[in-house]
Amino acid sequence: MKLVSFLAGGRPGYGIVTDAGIVDAGARLPDRPDLASLLADPGPLAALAGAPADHALADVTLLPPIPDSRRIICIGLNYKTHIAETGHEPPAHPILFPRYPDSLVGADAPLVRPRVSERFDFEGELAVVIGRPGRHIAAADALAHVAGYACFNDGSIRDFQRHTSQFLPGKNFAASGSFGPWLVTPDEVGDVGALQLTTRLNGEIVQQTGIDDLLFDVPALIAYVSQIWEVRPGDVIATGTTGGVGAARKPPLWMKPGDRVEVAIDRLGTLANTVVEEDQA
Amino acid sequence: MKLVSFLAGGRPGYGIVTDAGIVDAGARLPDRPDLASLLADPGPLAALAGAPADHALADVTLLPPIPDSRRIICIGLNYKTHIAETGHEPPAHPILFPRYPDSLVGADAPLVRPRVSERFDFEGELAVVIGRPGRHIAAADALAHVAGYACFNDGSIRDFQRHTSQFLPGKNFAASGSFGPWLVTPDEVGDVGALQLTTRLNGEIVQQTGIDDLLFDVPALIAYVSQIWEVRPGDVIATGTTGGVGAARKPPLWMKPGDRVEVAIDRLGTLANTVVEEDQA
Repeated sequence: MKLVSFLAGGRPGYGIVTDAGIVDAGARLPDRPDLASLLADPGPLAALAGAPADHALADVTLLPPIPDSRRIICIGLNYKTHIAETGHEPPAHPILFPRYPDSLVGADAPLVRPRVSERFDFEGELAVVIGRPGRHIAAADALAHVAGYACFNDGSIRDFQRHTSQFLPGKNFAASGSFGPWLVTPDEVGDVGALQLTTRLNGEIVQQTGIDDLLFDVPALIAYVSQIWEVRPGDVIATGTTGGVGAARKPPLWMKPGDRVEVAIDRLGTLANTVVEEDQA
Repeated sequence: MKLVSFLAGGRPGYGIVTDAGIVDAGARLPDRPDLASLLADPGPLAALAGAPADHALADVTLLPPIPDSRRIICIGLNYKTHIAETGHEPPAHPILFPRYPDSLVGADAPLVRPRVSERFDFEGELAVVIGRPGRHIAAADALAHVAGYACFNDGSIRDFQRHTSQFLPGKNFAASGSFGPWLVTPDEVGDVGALQLTTRLNGEIVQQTGIDDLLFDVPALIAYVSQIWEVRPGDVIATGTTGGVGAARKPPLWMKPGDRVEVAIDRLGTLANTVVEEDQA
């Protein structure tokens, strides 16, 4: 099942993408204000999947699948071949940093290159969304806490990322990353390790990897994060990017206004965005 | 004026601390759900300050002044004497990392030492709360965006902080830090640089500094942060800690269950908490 959050006629909603269009789940579930609240108790989903469509996909504005997530945790340096090419030792623990919700847009929305920097880079990633809450979750039990998977672009302002040891500033400029187009439930995904991730800039492949190259896989990440805090429905873990980022190229390859960037993962669809300047956003 | 958020009879509220007790501002302003929404438009504050008190201070449970802040940004390595004693070069830019709201408790609430670590450290700090929103704020204009100041304890799980380069995990265990007891408006504070900060563990002074020893002062921090994103009412900047932390002592000094830790700043009061174990929280 493909789950989306959207604006329809300016009003926020969420629903299920079917062949006929979007079934507006939020309109039918007035006690569930957003998709995260449905993921917390997904009982009504199965029945809704057979309802008639309410919106054509082309008539809504897609938002990130979880538009206002409490917790969006990104992972650094987590693909084995990417670690090898940087010359770093594999980290002993996952490298965690956060994004705030307003740093992300949905599919097809503009990505904003900020006024203060031209070093705007792409990072194609697999994102995992939590459904079932838990703390101190064992890796062996972790996949039962997953509500679904999506594409993610951890767009980065490299000079602000490297101002100090802490990545936070470079990863949190307004509308500098993206998440979507939809959340795909685990039954439609199967083994995420078998999927391939491809990032394209203006049609050219700039990153490509199998998800099975992850150093800390999805269960290991959920186990580590849940030692620190309770994971809850709608929490997001973006699992890290692979080689090929613009900052590592000679000369560097930065995204500029007018560029089109796409993150595609088998079975999860393609997350496409174009780049605009801050003062035109 | 001293502004608090609290639970009274299990219900969340916010108000003004007067000599007679707490004036319940939230009960009188039904269209303002929380203190952050009052800071966004503080017009009614002056009239409310003269209203009769509704609660004795002893009858409420204090929460962090902004209990569910969208953005709590902490600053690392920001006192000049502390930088000198660590042997580091002064950073060229402020070092930013985040705390999530559920990592913080209010005054007098228990701080939780997690199950997975015994390396639980204190960090006394000055916190700044934003009142007026803005982006790309010049340092010269920044103080006009401040709604008030408070004490902050950036409690840290040092082994998780040092698992990787990124501080996030060690700074975000549930209920591992504190914020309060109240927010004091700038008219009662005057020049924050003139204030002295003291941290005590079980009555003994463990940290002491003048706020004028900050490398990046409050205006410089607001200017930097507002390049990255819009600052909004209720956003918090915790300005960093000074020398004397437990991790830097030989042998290290960790907080343990039963300990009492206090952060006191002139004119801002004393933020006191006791430590409990996770499984007793």
